[in-house]
Amino acid sequence: MNVLVLHGPNLNLLGEREPEIYGSKTLRSINEDLIQLARELGMSLSIFQSNHEGELIEKIQQADVSGILINAAAYTHTSIGIRDALLTRDLPFVEVHMTNVFSRESYRHHSYLSDVAIGIVSGFGANSYLLGLRAIYGNLTQIE
Amino acid sequence: MNVLVLHGPNLNLLGEREPEIYGSKTLRSINEDLIQLARELGMSLSIFQSNHEGELIEKIQQADVSGILINAAAYTHTSIGIRDALLTRDLPFVEVHMTNVFSRESYRHHSYLSDVAIGIVSGFGANSYLLGLRAIYGNLTQIE
Amino acid sequence: MNVLVLHGPNLNLLGEREPEIYGSKTLRSINEDLIQLARELGMSLSIFQSNHEGELIEKIQQADVSGILINAAAYTHTSIGIRDALLTRDLPFVEVHMTNVFSRESYRHHSYLSDVAIGIVSGFGANSYLLGLRAIYGNLTQIE
Amino acid sequence: MNVLVLHGPNLNLLGEREPEIYGSKTLRSINEDLIQLARELGMSLSIFQSNHEGELIEKIQQADVSGILINAAAYTHTSIGIRDALLTRDLPFVEVHMTNVFSRESYRHHSYLSDVAIGIVSGFGANSYLLGLRAIYGNLTQIE
Amino acid sequence: MNVLVLHGPNLNLLGEREPEIYGSKTLRSINEDLIQLARELGMSLSIFQSNHEGELIEKIQQADVSGILINAAAYTHTSIGIRDALLTRDLPFVEVHMTNVFSRESYRHHSYLSDVAIGIVSGFGANSYLLGLRAIYGNLTQIE
Amino acid sequence: MNVLVLHGPNLNLLGEREPEIYGSKTLRSINEDLIQLARELGMSLSIFQSNHEGELIEKIQQADVSGILINAAAYTHTSIGIRDALLTRDLPFVEVHMTNVFSRESYRHHSYLSDVAIGIVSGFGANSYLLGLRAIYGNLTQIE
Amino acid sequence: MNVLVLHGPNLNLLGEREPEIYGSKTLRSINEDLIQLARELGMSLSIFQSNHEGELIEKIQQADVSGILINAAAYTHTSIGIRDALLTRDLPFVEVHMTNVFSRESYRHHSYLSDVAIGIVSGFGANSYLLGLRAIYGNLTQIE
Amino acid sequence: MNVLVLHGPNLNLLGEREPEIYGSKTLRSINEDLIQLARELGMSLSIFQSNHEGELIEKIQQADVSGILINAAAYTHTSIGIRDALLTRDLPFVEVHMTNVFSRESYRHHSYLSDVAIGIVSGFGANSYLLGLRAIYGNLTQIE
Amino acid sequence: MNVLVLHGPNLNLLGEREPEIYGSKTLRSINEDLIQLARELGMSLSIFQSNHEGELIEKIQQADVSGILINAAAYTHTSIGIRDALLTRDLPFVEVHMTNVFSRESYRHHSYLSDVAIGIVSGFGANSYLLGLRAIYGNLTQIE
Amino acid sequence: MNVLVLHGPNLNLLGEREPEIYGSKTLRSINEDLIQLARELGMSLSIFQSNHEGELIEKIQQADVSGILINAAAYTHTSIGIRDALLTRDLPFVEVHMTNVFSRESYRHHSYLSDVAIGIVSGFGANSYLLGLRAIYGNLTQIE
Amino acid sequence: MNVLVLHGPNLNLLGEREPEIYGSKTLRSINEDLIQLARELGMSLSIFQSNHEGELIEKIQQADVSGILINAAAYTHTSIGIRDALLTRDLPFVEVHMTNVFSRESYRHHSYLSDVAIGIVSGFGANSYLLGLRAIYGNLTQIE
Amino acid sequence: MNVLVLHGPNLNLLGEREPEIYGSKTLRSINEDLIQLARELGMSLSIFQSNHEGELIEKIQQADVSGILINAAAYTHTSIGIRDALLTRDLPFVEVHMTNVFSRESYRHHSYLSDVAIGIVSGFGANSYLLGLRAIYGNLTQIE
Repeated sequence: MNVLVLHGPNLNLLGEREPEIYGSKTLRSINEDLIQLARELGMSLSIFQSNHEGELIEKIQQADVSGILINAAAYTHTSIGIRDALLTRDLPFVEVHMTNVFSRESYRHHSYLSDVAIGIVSGFGANSYLLGLRAIYGNLTQIE
Repeated sequence: MNVLVLHGPNLNLLGEREPEIYGSKTLRSINEDLIQLARELGMSLSIFQSNHEGELIEKIQQADVSGILINAAAYTHTSIGIRDALLTRDLPFVEVHMTNVFSRESYRHHSYLSDVAIGIVSGFGANSYLLGLRAIYGNLTQIE
Repeated sequence: MNVLVLHGPNLNLLGEREPEIYGSKTLRSINEDLIQLARELGMSLSIFQSNHEGELIEKIQQADVSGILINAAAYTHTSIGIRDALLTRDLPFVEVHMTNVFSRESYRHHSYLSDVAIGIVSGFGANSYLLGLRAIYGNLTQIE
Repeated sequence: MNVLVLHGPNLNLLGEREPEIYGSKTLRSINEDLIQLARELGMSLSIFQSNHEGELIEKIQQADVSGILINAAAYTHTSIGIRDALLTRDLPFVEVHMTNVFSRESYRHHSYLSDVAIGIVSGFGANSYLLGLRAIYGNLTQIE
Repeated sequence: MNVLVLHGPNLNLLGEREPEIYGSKTLRSINEDLIQLARELGMSLSIFQSNHEGELIEKIQQADVSGILINAAAYTHTSIGIRDALLTRDLPFVEVHMTNVFSRESYRHHSYLSDVAIGIVSGFGANSYLLGLRAIYGNLTQIE
Repeated sequence: MNVLVLHGPNLNLLGEREPEIYGSKTLRSINEDLIQLARELGMSLSIFQSNHEGELIEKIQQADVSGILINAAAYTHTSIGIRDALLTRDLPFVEVHMTNVFSRESYRHHSYLSDVAIGIVSGFGANSYLLGLRAIYGNLTQIE
Repeated sequence: MNVLVLHGPNLNLLGEREPEIYGSKTLRSINEDLIQLARELGMSLSIFQSNHEGELIEKIQQADVSGILINAAAYTHTSIGIRDALLTRDLPFVEVHMTNVFSRESYRHHSYLSDVAIGIVSGFGANSYLLGLRAIYGNLTQIE
Repeated sequence: MNVLVLHGPNLNLLGEREPEIYGSKTLRSINEDLIQLARELGMSLSIFQSNHEGELIEKIQQADVSGILINAAAYTHTSIGIRDALLTRDLPFVEVHMTNVFSRESYRHHSYLSDVAIGIVSGFGANSYLLGLRAIYGNLTQIE
Repeated sequence: MNVLVLHGPNLNLLGEREPEIYGSKTLRSINEDLIQLARELGMSLSIFQSNHEGELIEKIQQADVSGILINAAAYTHTSIGIRDALLTRDLPFVEVHMTNVFSRESYRHHSYLSDVAIGIVSGFGANSYLLGLRAIYGNLTQIE
Repeated sequence: MNVLVLHGPNLNLLGEREPEIYGSKTLRSINEDLIQLARELGMSLSIFQSNHEGELIEKIQQADVSGILINAAAYTHTSIGIRDALLTRDLPFVEVHMTNVFSRESYRHHSYLSDVAIGIVSGFGANSYLLGLRAIYGNLTQIE
Repeated sequence: MNVLVLHGPNLNLLGEREPEIYGSKTLRSINEDLIQLARELGMSLSIFQSNHEGELIEKIQQADVSGILINAAAYTHTSIGIRDALLTRDLPFVEVHMTNVFSRESYRHHSYLSDVAIGIVSGFGANSYLLGLRAIYGNLTQIE
Repeated sequence: MNVLVLHGPNLNLLGEREPEIYGSKTLRSINEDLIQLARELGMSLSIFQSNHEGELIEKIQQADVSGILINAAAYTHTSIGIRDALLTRDLPFVEVHMTNVFSRESYRHHSYLSDVAIGIVSGFGANSYLLGLRAIYGNLTQIE
């Protein structure tokens, strides 16, 4: 049970700049937490971050996994290409956001991914990733 | 650390009718799973289901809890009264939905609760409740 | 062949106040006409009026019938909860209105029930109920 | 008590093509049922079908009747000319549709006729016509 | 200087029915007034009424005139075909309405003809036609 | 001259929770001020608070009064049922809000009551009720 | 039979600047033509131009006339104050525009005056004024 | 405690024309009532009416007062300049309307003043001014 | 393999008027090109032009063909009746336009036919027809 | 090379009231800076401030200049009259705003001037004027 | 006569995954068919596929061709950059889609390319490319 | 005081193609002018052009500067990713456009950058860059 974890644009800066705003947890630290939880659940992870829409599309095209955990960040709201790549692969995927997108600008209320995702987790900071991983785990192991 | 779990209209029918559609898990069974997870996390739960908007408002007004886990079902999309009750109490709350509301009718895409919730979990069946409980646990114990 | 007849908010006042506007026919009288027509058609009726959204939801949940005839009045335009209850029961139902909702305020032009009803009868005063009963009779007896 | 029955575009094909979709009842058969019900109610009917907006307008202009029963089909949603003809005649008319227009494409949700009709019957197959005839009968004989 | 005068659907009924609403002036009488004014101004007229969109299109296609005076009635708001016919001929035309379309239903506020007409005259009853004829006369004789 | 004073959902909490936000005036205290002003003006009051839409509808149906002063709170923006009850009674009523609804969320800018009220008073805290009572007094005593 | 002729903002420049665009006819010349036509029709005119919304409002308030001919120019689309002044006086008025407002920017398609005017004349250059004067003459002398 | 009372366009005509519509109370009479109430409450008033947006702006800029009572009439819906003047002065102000703006044309439902006012009083005829004066009095004397 | 070629309103004028705009190719010439290409591909054609919506509907109803090539011209954007006729026949059809409808007026961007067509060819002048014929040929011969 | 500098409503208060918000720079001071920069660039300036739409229109009509620098303030968003005056003069003009209009209320995002201006400078406080003057200088001296 | 053929994101997967949905034709095979048809028509092709918006922009910038055949896939609906590149080159181009974009999600109904393309071919599977190549051939060789 | 100058997609072609449209000034020449003005003002510049959204995001993430001058070209209207990168860096930035975006296609009227920029300069050709540089200079040196 291998899962692809995708981090979209600007997430590479997490925890490194302005920790008073985004918290002190770096993307590296989030990834380590994800890897540890995956190990506990008996899953393995492939993790990738990119600021390029095309690279995210290609990573989705090529990944040899059972499911995808994706925080597409800004591309959530603008990329039909990532949606199409996910649809083409026809793999179960979970959409996560660290912030509560519904309490932010109105253009963040629409996602090109949500209606074809298994489900959405939004608003719990770094914990959104862990909850998302548990969600995809539940889906892959058919826990209702 | 006590949490109020609120189930909105029609959720009392879960698992009792049409199990081929909604699964065979009853609301009672979901509640038992929640109680067990709460015990593991060291939390206690108050659980309430109602088909009446006014009763849900009053339960929110009166609950003596640290946080709220709410699946307002149909009232998610029509009740400003429940939103106002939640705002008045100023307690952290998590919004959950068993189905993926974004892949359903367009009037289910708007929630009167989302922008004032900590966050949202939607689409993972009965597991949405468990993830939501973990999310509020993380919030109350400051796990970022 | 038992049918549930549901009357929504404010319909309890029919014929009792302002007969010059709403006619002198009371809800009691409408119900008597419905019962007589049902007898002629070989159907039995369960009749219920409520001003409470939650009570209407629960009546739908619990009714042991073959079909439903519903004039949800104001809740037609605001209640997703009643829609969800009807969807959960998966019973054929007919939506009726005494007035022509399309010649009234624009917010009455949208109904949360219409697209999942068998059909709609609107604008014929008390006769709308009788036509609606015939319509559900036709549906239950497969008259095309 | 003479009533004009108008059938709009494409209704001439009813029952002749694709009976698995539209049922095996032809327009001729529907008309016979209408004539029989009219006889029972003591009414006489003039029946007309056309695929031409102008012909429908002129039939409305010229009919010597007490009321009109109209299924304008596609012209329901596009013809202000038919509406104007009905307004000019100032005759009571009932709008009927065999299908439930509210569960079809969104452009079928608006009718240029509804707000000036006595009322609407939609969704009951061939039975919609019979119910509509009873509705106009009730209106002409002042049955509330 | 020959001008085509086109009357759209339902205008054939002017003055014949409900004179208390539409006045007692018939279309014949309006046409006579137009012919008299045309004679005074040194113009000749071709006059045509139809309830059929296609006939109005073809009359525009075939007319051997210097300009057109058109009251397209209901087709004003629904016919792109008449607009296209007028564009194809590239003749100056004036749009007239007997009623003030801007004080009526909102769907009458938009015209498919206005932006390609020389100009519009609306609201002056039968006089709208006479003013419209003077307007096209002014245009053809270059009176600024 | 008896007036029904209606308080909608969540107003029972006024002054009891979070006085730094909503002020220290309780609903009881507002009611006492209203009763005192009513006495000065020679009016008597019936006062009722409910979190249930259905109860508010029924109180309006049954009240034996000359006019109504209503703060429907959240139901202002969602309840057609309360509007219908007020229309059925055909009593003069004044709509009041403690906060300025126009400086809050956009969904609070629309009221289902305003267009059928005598008038609106919004934004003056507890004083809105007193001004509203004077307004209905003025209306009932025909002070222009 | 005295008529007030009102010219709105920027019309004082007609014919003086850029004659290649607006024609060589000055406002003075248009006024002379109007006066001559009025004399022929047995009417007298009061003529006023202003670039100030308030001055136009006050001229309407104070005019001792039987009707008004108004080209409110830019204020057509932005001034509710001029509309209100016209409504207060309850005098018949005709709205004219030299250009065809429907073939210009979309914000010129809406007029705050049209729905309360007798009618509209738009698009015939200086001739619009003369046609408008004939229109108000027809209205005042009841020529249908 | 000095208050500026501002009357917008066309209010100078109150009571002088068409008393059957607007009542027989003149602006002078309203002002006298306001002055008397102000005296009772221990306030002094500066009163000003204008049909000119610019004059109203300048009166707001220059007034040496503690608060403002404004019926901007038509400018309520079109003047950002008056809003800006009020914002620049940063004085508490109350918006009043004699008619119920929400039961009139839809463009009167939006006000450029409401969201920055203390509150709104609308619909009580001349009494709206007196209620508005009490409202600003309450605000300036901190009566909650 | 017989195909019905339908030409909508105003297309009868192609090439006859204003060749500098529409080119010198007449409808007759386009038809000849189509017939020649059909012969090369081994297809036979039935060709029909009409300015009447009803005639186009009836031609679709009656045609004994394997597929349809349709340029509905103005009716593309206004006729639900033609759409319904095409749906009733359930034949594969291709929608063509000589001009690029997306670079023209916004109301030409919506087609009532596109979503139920096999596909669309738009913008290539007379060549659009030839490409459309090849497209329907490909569809009928299952060339992917 | 003479340029007209126009300041719209409320700008006369700059720097005089609430310096903590609007800065301590008065309009006089801004004008002095503009005059000095103009001198450096070899330009002369005519400067005018008004709170009256009509006065601004007339100043534009009468100015004998090569270009215009305009901060129309509130009238930017509501005045078609100022737009029309600028169009009539056909002079190059630059639109400036001291604040960033795109980070303020949504009704400030639309300008009636922008699409016919050479360009826009917005958001740089008093510096916006100086940049705007350089921009018009560049335009008049053809610096690309 | 050299033509650039551009394939947008995710088209590299054609035929390789899920042949039951997308057919068994690979992009390689489509390209071969295009090359063969180009040879027959006497054209040469440059073919390029990319998942990166920037690479597609640069390929358009640099191509030394007479025309472009582009299936921008997801970027059709989101990329103004590709549109700008095509506009900058000012080369004739044809937009193609394998699926019928008008029978899919509503956000696929808008294209940033269509209004500046010669024309559009949509819905014919792999054949769309061949028809598109014939279309650009016709354009380059001036076949009307 | 170092400033990052970012040029978005297609700006690399400036002055090289179609000089009759875009002027003969190349991007190189614009950059030289910027460097010279920077030197005069005592600033240093880092200059970067890319057609790739991801590269622009990363350049913003990594730049060691005091402020940013950005012409994001097409990405202005589609990239939330660039907005997020700018927000993450929390550096003052100025948005510039060579053309007047408000006189172009409507989708260019909205910018994802404007509301978080210091300000905007649009419409002055290559001079927009120089004015933008002066604007950011003014901001960094606190010139009001």
